[in-house]
Formats: sequence, C-alpha cells, structure tokens
Amino acid sequence: MKPYKKRDFPVAETRRLLEPGPVVLVSSAWEGERNVMTMGWHTMMEFTPALVGCIISEANYSYTLISQSQQCVINVPTLELARQVALVGNCSGRDVDKFDKFKLTAVDAEEVAAPLIAECYANFECKLVDSSLREKYNFFVFEVVKAHAASAPKIPKTIHYRGEGMFMVAGRSLNLRRYFRPDML
Amino acid sequence: MKPYKKRDFPVAETRRLLEPGPVVLVSSAWEGERNVMTMGWHTMMEFTPALVGCIISEANYSYTLISQSQQCVINVPTLELARQVALVGNCSGRDVDKFDKFKLTAVDAEEVAAPLIAECYANFECKLVDSSLREKYNFFVFEVVKAHAASAPKIPKTIHYRGEGMFMVAGRSLNLRRYFRPDML
Repeated sequence: MKPYKKRDFPVAETRRLLEPGPVVLVSSAWEGERNVMTMGWHTMMEFTPALVGCIISEANYSYTLISQSQQCVINVPTLELARQVALVGNCSGRDVDKFDKFKLTAVDAEEVAAPLIAECYANFECKLVDSSLREKYNFFVFEVVKAHAASAPKIPKTIHYRGEGMFMVAGRSLNLRRYFRPDML
Repeated sequence: MKPYKKRDFPVAETRRLLEPGPVVLVSSAWEGERNVMTMGWHTMMEFTPALVGCIISEANYSYTLISQSQQCVINVPTLELARQVALVGNCSGRDVDKFDKFKLTAVDAEEVAAPLIAECYANFECKLVDSSLREKYNFFVFEVVKAHAASAPKIPKTIHYRGEGMFMVAGRSLNLRRYFRPDML
C-alpha cells in the first residue's frame, strides 16, 4: 500500500487516535537490530504529558529492544494493512526482519531511534518513563514526545482485535456533543 | 431499553470484549452510596488471572468509592445506551444518583458489592489487586473474578470514544484467522 502523507500532530491529541482501542504496531530498534510487533493491550494514562501504558510480553523480541533502548514508536495501522498486522503478530523478529518481509517502510523518527512505519495512519514517538510494573506485569508507561498523523481521511479505518483471529473494523461516527458540558469537550 | 438476557461468561475470555477498546460504565458502591462513571482508558493486562488496568481520576466520585471498597463492576454498554453513556460522563455522583436519573437497573453482583448494570451487554465483577500506581497516575489494576455476558447478539455494537463528544460505533467483522498460527488462536 501507499504510505500515508503525514503532518505533525499535536501530542496532546494522542488520545483521539488511541482511546478508541485500535490494534497498533510497535516499532523498536537497538544496536543495529530493529523490530515491529502487533499490540492490542494499551491505554491512555494522561493527557499532558501524553502517557500511554501498554503490555509487551517478555516473550516478544521487542521486549528486549524496548527495555534496552527505552524507546519505541506506536504506529496506528488501518484496514489496508490488516493482513500485515496479523502476519507481524504471528512471527518473531528473532527469525526475520519484519520490515523487509512484510514490505513496511521504516522512516527515521525525530526524537527516538526507533523507526516510524510509513504505511501507518499515525506514528507516536515514545520514551519509556516508568517501568516499575514491568517485572510484575510486562507493563510499560511511555510518554509520547512527538506525533505524526495523516490529515486524510479525517477518520481512520482502524482495526480492533476481538481474539481468535477476528477483528472489528471501525464503523460509523456518532455525534453526542449535545449531551456534553462545554468543559468536557 | 430492555435489559440484556445474560449468562455466565468465562472470566478468561474477558479480553474478547474489552480488547477492542469500548467505552465502559464502571459501577461501584460503598457504605450505602453507589455510583456509575463512564471510562475510556483501560487495557487488558493478563489472560489468567484476567487483569484489567484503568485510569479513574481522583476528580471522580467513583475514585473514592472504589478506593474504599476495593471493588467495582466494569459494564460494557452498546449503541442503544449511547445517550446515557454520554450523560453519565457529564455529571457527578456527588450530586445525583445516576442509576435513578438515567434509568439504569442495578442488579446484585455475585462476588462484589458493586451493582451490575442490567442494560449493559456484559458485566465484569472486579476486585482491586494492585494500587501501587494509583497515587502517581490514578491507575488501578483489577482482577475480573466473575463475568456475565449476553449471548445475543453474538457481536455487540460497542461504542468507542474519539474525544470532543464524538464516538465510533463498532463496525463489520474481519476474519484473519488464515494468517494466524494455530497456537495464537
């Protein structure tokens, strides 16, 4: 697929793309090695600084690269990339360079050494800020230090994992602003 | 709306309903008080025990009820309940009983004192198991100790928050099982 054309995205708006719960691709790099993994277990933790908590199992090759480099990029793929998302999640970076194998384009990030994935709708450059629950739960807390997102389409067709190889594709929009207090918008 | 007809749901399958990232209603109770809040920031953390991490701001009345009782119920609403989900998120349980105000039916849970919401598609009874990051991030780790879910429809029309009063309604299913290793299903 063609890479998305992206522009700088306000870090404080990170939640607008991650809160709906899409499956994401996490890219990382350390001492000449690079990798990408599929991740479904993440949550926003704070608006500013923009904090994201996520589970990266120690069984994953990425666990080592991210623990060592203390950095990663959280990339938001869309429907066009669904096949690669599934395949990336079903092999290990110990055995293969997944960027090459799945024709993902690695682009230099600005604030971290991990690569952005050009074919994803958005890229969040992250620095590890808290690993106090890493040993116990494989839980990492990242701060988004730089963000990039496509401006079109306005709403990305993200995919959301249901388990057993089944995904949900982002559906229609629902405007409920009329029920919100102005200070909640 | 009519309550969903529910049956016991395997706790180990909790992820199938929470991993896609729906906005949820969290119910709680403590010393004669009860409350319900809207929550969008949560993640699965473990399969078994089924752990869920989430952010409950100390600004919320629920923060106190949950911190004191060390319990809550995570309820998964669907499209029919969207208006109530928005309204619940825009008022405080300090001022009003939201079950009464928004015509939500409180049903006794089995393992916790917090009530289930009958109109939600699924209810996960939770016990607080780790509050080590509560002071720093308002982050709570719960174990799901009992689960209930509707058997129809098979796939719930969950709603997912995008910010600014805009939601995404769960869309179509995508079967990518053919790309999965058997042990990953």
